[in-house]
Amino acid sequence: MSPGHGGAELPLQMLLVFGAAKILGEVTERLKIPNIVGQITAGVLLGPSVLALVQPASIRELADLGVMFLLFRVGLEVRPSDLFTVGKTASIVATLGVLVPLLMGYAIYRWSGASNVESLFVGAAMVATSVGITAQVLAGMGLLNALASRIILAAAVIDDILGLIVLAIVSSVAAGGVNVLQLATTAAISIAFTVFVLIAGSRTVGKMLPRLDKRMKGGESEFTIAMILLFALAVFASYAGVAAIIGAFLAGVALAETVSHRVHVLAQGVTELLVPFFLAGIGLALDVHVLKDPKVLGLAALITAAAVVSKLVGCGLGAWPLGFEEAKRIGAGMVPRGEVGMVVAQIGATMGTISQQAYGVVVVMAVMTTVIAPILLNWTFGSIACEPEESPISIE
Amino acid sequence: MSPGHGGAELPLQMLLVFGAAKILGEVTERLKIPNIVGQITAGVLLGPSVLALVQPASIRELADLGVMFLLFRVGLEVRPSDLFTVGKTASIVATLGVLVPLLMGYAIYRWSGASNVESLFVGAAMVATSVGITAQVLAGMGLLNALASRIILAAAVIDDILGLIVLAIVSSVAAGGVNVLQLATTAAISIAFTVFVLIAGSRTVGKMLPRLDKRMKGGESEFTIAMILLFALAVFASYAGVAAIIGAFLAGVALAETVSHRVHVLAQGVTELLVPFFLAGIGLALDVHVLKDPKVLGLAALITAAAVVSKLVGCGLGAWPLGFEEAKRIGAGMVPRGEVGMVVAQIGATMGTISQQAYGVVVVMAVMTTVIAPILLNWTFGSIACEPEESPISIE
Repeated sequence: MSPGHGGAELPLQMLLVFGAAKILGEVTERLKIPNIVGQITAGVLLGPSVLALVQPASIRELADLGVMFLLFRVGLEVRPSDLFTVGKTASIVATLGVLVPLLMGYAIYRWSGASNVESLFVGAAMVATSVGITAQVLAGMGLLNALASRIILAAAVIDDILGLIVLAIVSSVAAGGVNVLQLATTAAISIAFTVFVLIAGSRTVGKMLPRLDKRMKGGESEFTIAMILLFALAVFASYAGVAAIIGAFLAGVALAETVSHRVHVLAQGVTELLVPFFLAGIGLALDVHVLKDPKVLGLAALITAAAVVSKLVGCGLGAWPLGFEEAKRIGAGMVPRGEVGMVVAQIGATMGTISQQAYGVVVVMAVMTTVIAPILLNWTFGSIACEPEESPISIE
Repeated sequence: MSPGHGGAELPLQMLLVFGAAKILGEVTERLKIPNIVGQITAGVLLGPSVLALVQPASIRELADLGVMFLLFRVGLEVRPSDLFTVGKTASIVATLGVLVPLLMGYAIYRWSGASNVESLFVGAAMVATSVGITAQVLAGMGLLNALASRIILAAAVIDDILGLIVLAIVSSVAAGGVNVLQLATTAAISIAFTVFVLIAGSRTVGKMLPRLDKRMKGGESEFTIAMILLFALAVFASYAGVAAIIGAFLAGVALAETVSHRVHVLAQGVTELLVPFFLAGIGLALDVHVLKDPKVLGLAALITAAAVVSKLVGCGLGAWPLGFEEAKRIGAGMVPRGEVGMVVAQIGATMGTISQQAYGVVVVMAVMTTVIAPILLNWTFGSIACEPEESPISIE
């Protein structure tokens, strides 16, 4: 080995992000504020708008891998039947949870004086739930298998597909016209992919994995196969128009009933290391200087409030038949928009259809909903939460 | 979630590199060629000179993290006393293993008609052992605790410090003069850091970790502390002039006697995921087009042969008192140069003291020694190897 080789930058960045996220998470937890809030705040502090110690781009890859592994780990705790049995309720929750925010966001932004297309984009950015945050909180409470949790997970998958369709429509409107056939094809492919993997994945893996595992000579071959499936389904999901993390989730679900405990713990190691990068990464995206303009600040506050209320109301209404308590829980679980809302806003910005100001508003909304959601989840799920376990993923 | 978010590039790259490395590793293993050779070959195939599917820069970060975790995991299996008891032999092995390659490389390159300074740089690039490859092979054979393995690990740490001094001298000569005081200071700091962490680290961790762990509220707090120590020592090592991976190794050693089995498995998950990126990353650096020039090809072959022979002879001589078998094993273990030799050549290229041709020769030598070493290790250690275990790191 030699000097110069493997300089201090990479370990320094790992130390700063991982260390700050974990320490601030610990601090907020002692203040009875969810751990996640501290980790996101660490990102805000390290980011360009405060200390400027970490560039968002430099941890992008680790953050993206982090949320992929988080959803994979969550998938490992879920059986396909868990999702199918709640399918009907989840569909209604997802649909109302898409329509209400879209209309509310559109109306508020139009009212503020923005153009039709820009308002549509802001509405679209308020549609997509970022299930990673909720999954992390529920896993930490040991509640991934609660009824409300299963509905949230299933609704998040459906929400992703609906979000795809909404974005396709809004982008088409912005570009000048809607191609219904193309839209229908896109929707059909993404639905077909998801349903196919859910139905066939678990059975195929159950048959193939033990055989492959036996034949392989390398160490940890079961983990190797799991990783290849994870990345392959993430790639296919992207090609099918769904988010890569939905593919990662489906890979976890497909493996859930077959894979050994050791693979759970090995994947947990990767998740533990990388999730702080995902959480801090959300905070890193926030430019607090945007909020100096009182008009932007007011609009951001309004849109954030609307983002929270619209999911609580929309998803809550969808879950109404299960009673008020469950409806509250499910609504709260769908609140975080996280990095997903930002991506929609980025697409709008790239198309030149939304202003820098609207982009700033969406980023604030995206970050703030991920900060508010864990607090709401703590309240609504608090009554059924068991003792937090050693691992933030429930079943060990 | 939404389309566009988390596109296919990252998972596709993960799938290509991880999948190809694992599959080719499996193939070579069936051909009785070490698994590692297949994984490095996967990098050559995916890299710019053959299929051009993966850019070396795009997996740099994961590769660097991979070798950091590999050395950390190896450190977790080593007690400080394991290193101190073999300290004397390891010092002689490291010293002769630095001098012989330096002189041999210098002589051959000078003989080929190159300048004095360029020949010195090629010699310096042949000095530094990349212990990651050897560690991975020995761990896979379950032999990390063999006498020869402990000597190799201790010698690799000393070799790193000696390599630092050699590079400092060679760079000073190239820049026009040697500052003895500055050189002595650099050497003293790096030695002081390493010895201090080895002596004080384990005891400090033994006292502090259980207390910290008890006080922390977050899940997997022991793993969290281990990760922070790993990154912190990697940063400090870089500042002290030693490689970041030596810091990672020392962090593992400091934690070895305190940390629970669960932390081993969690860290193993990260290692399993990332080591293929480290191995493929070595192959990615190789530009096979360089070898079209017969003069370069001949010189590369000669320098590669010299690199292998000089470590076998130099380190072997140092280990002579232990008998011929052990001397062979230790010599073989010190053969791989890997990414470390390339870094020295890069510094030379940046200073403008070595030609593009010499750079190409060094890269070929660096890659080929990592391919040859596992084969030599299989031969020399074969007689004492036990059955390979489930995990490529020995103790579970």
